Amino acid sequence: MQINIARRIFDTNDRVAERLRNVFESSGLLVVNVLGSPGAGKTSLIERSLEHLTNKLRVAVIEGDLATSLDADRLRRFGVPVVQINTGGLCHLDSAMIENVLSEFDLPTLDLLIIENVGNLVCPVRFDLGEACKIVVASLPEGDDKVAKYPTAFSSASVVVLNKIDLKNALNFDMDRFERDLLAVNPAVELFRVSCCTGIGLDRWVDWLNQRAAS
Amino acid sequence: MQINIARRIFDTNDRVAERLRNVFESSGLLVVNVLGSPGAGKTSLIERSLEHLTNKLRVAVIEGDLATSLDADRLRRFGVPVVQINTGGLCHLDSAMIENVLSEFDLPTLDLLIIENVGNLVCPVRFDLGEACKIVVASLPEGDDKVAKYPTAFSSASVVVLNKIDLKNALNFDMDRFERDLLAVNPAVELFRVSCCTGIGLDRWVDWLNQRAAS
Repeated sequence: MQINIARRIFDTNDRVAERLRNVFESSGLLVVNVLGSPGAGKTSLIERSLEHLTNKLRVAVIEGDLATSLDADRLRRFGVPVVQINTGGLCHLDSAMIENVLSEFDLPTLDLLIIENVGNLVCPVRFDLGEACKIVVASLPEGDDKVAKYPTAFSSASVVVLNKIDLKNALNFDMDRFERDLLAVNPAVELFRVSCCTGIGLDRWVDWLNQRAAS
Repeated sequence: MQINIARRIFDTNDRVAERLRNVFESSGLLVVNVLGSPGAGKTSLIERSLEHLTNKLRVAVIEGDLATSLDADRLRRFGVPVVQINTGGLCHLDSAMIENVLSEFDLPTLDLLIIENVGNLVCPVRFDLGEACKIVVASLPEGDDKVAKYPTAFSSASVVVLNKIDLKNALNFDMDRFERDLLAVNPAVELFRVSCCTGIGLDRWVDWLNQRAAS
């Protein structure tokens, strides 16, 4: 019974997501869905990306949060359109929420739409939002065992951004183990090692995003 | 429709949780439900607690994970009974899962049962497991805005353990802001500032747990 209910929820979500994907593709718009644990650095990564991209690309952001507009407020100072979705406690964004706010944007004028999901390494993975790529943000303080313990998020990602590498010397993080586990579940993944705090490694990530949005 | 389904799931969970609570109380057993984001340090906190408690209390652990038995393996070396529940991708433990594994333990011989939930600061909060206290583990690298952004977890906690305070000098974490936000949503909470890495602050936490289990 629970399985049937879950299947119905996913089927409905997938249908709307497919509709969104058609809209995004016909607008020539790259849409990325940014996932990760609370505090991994999703908003910081978007801030750093906007710093480097707004002179090259026309970018907009959808911010998903349980509560508050703290993250949207952080991003509005970059002068890009930002729409906040508060899920009211729900643990993920779904495609209907995205469809409901799309009229806030003038899609044909945009190159890149960044969707920041609710901080959660589990539930958002199963809810397709019509995006072209899932970007998983992980961070060194979370530990080198996270791919093994949360494989679905990492196997579904086009890109993994491993953040907070400036803390490497303060932590006991086995980079080889993390990378080995990641390649085992997702051999085609792009991995960027960055620090949104110091800026290390962000150039490669920004180049990737820029190229994908421009193509 | 979705609300009715959700209500039915919670009602069923709450009924089983109430039955568990009666069993735990009649056995004189303290049960704590440990929640937090992936990598906050839930397993490390349990490891440090077992180091200090196993000569005073008879302790058992239920380990909840999406996949792997990595955490259970870490805890078995303390010589306590550990049961692993793999949720197969589900984002939280529910009371039926706990009821299903209870026969693995000899409850009347135990003082303390520690349940480590799936790493997730959102979904586990709404699933009562019949526990006496929810313990939320947060950590400095997650950022000082986490109470504001994930208020339900923090308002439902009897105890918040703020871990990784040894990284204080490497991070820009506003302790006053964290504590102010926490007291605003949960004035009665007990807050312990610890480092499971260096051991700072653990004595107070262990005393609290010991006293609660002995009373």
